[in-house]
Amino acid sequence: MTTLTSESCVACRRDSPKVTDAEMAELLPQIPDWEVTDTDGIPRLEKSYKFKNFSDALTFTTRLGLEADGEGHHPRITLEWGRVDVDWWTHKIRGLHRNDFVMAAKTDVMYAGSSDKPD
Amino acid sequence: MTTLTSESCVACRRDSPKVTDAEMAELLPQIPDWEVTDTDGIPRLEKSYKFKNFSDALTFTTRLGLEADGEGHHPRITLEWGRVDVDWWTHKIRGLHRNDFVMAAKTDVMYAGSSDKPD
Repeated sequence: MTTLTSESCVACRRDSPKVTDAEMAELLPQIPDWEVTDTDGIPRLEKSYKFKNFSDALTFTTRLGLEADGEGHHPRITLEWGRVDVDWWTHKIRGLHRNDFVMAAKTDVMYAGSSDKPD
Repeated sequence: MTTLTSESCVACRRDSPKVTDAEMAELLPQIPDWEVTDTDGIPRLEKSYKFKNFSDALTFTTRLGLEADGEGHHPRITLEWGRVDVDWWTHKIRGLHRNDFVMAAKTDVMYAGSSDKPD
């Protein structure tokens, strides 16, 4: 099985496929602690990360933003003191694409490799 | 009258004064388009800024975050494609302090001086 983190985002069009329930059941266990939430009928992957201060949360926000822009796939990132919330979904298909799971997994790797976590 | 943007944040303690209704009536006209909202009974100043892409919104987020950290007063910043939402309030007093109006005014100046706005 290839890992999500070894993948890159693929170009996404309005008729690109949403993940099926079967794919969702396979992919979600690969991104622990990510929750599927609903905003205005559109599902999103959401997770909250903790940091020991504002500065470290800002550094993570900037790194994630740069990585996301490089992939051409853009999350919502909510930054506050000691905390960053990340939402992934695919605007064009108003739902979840495999890209979102790839980026969620990459976000976890970035956090795991960060020295900015609380002690 | 001194302008808010010429002020710096003052150190804030749990018994620091919240802005009074009279002060609010004087200060709000100085920060156009900022709205006072309520989250769990705590008032916040909120404003949304538009950008022409994700990268410019990220740049603004990073600059605002660095400025805020330098002042020792920290907002919530929500970054997504073409948009940054900013919330100011004072955690220690669970309400609005003059610092929040100072930082709202400085956020406006930062946006006005940005080349990142939509055309």
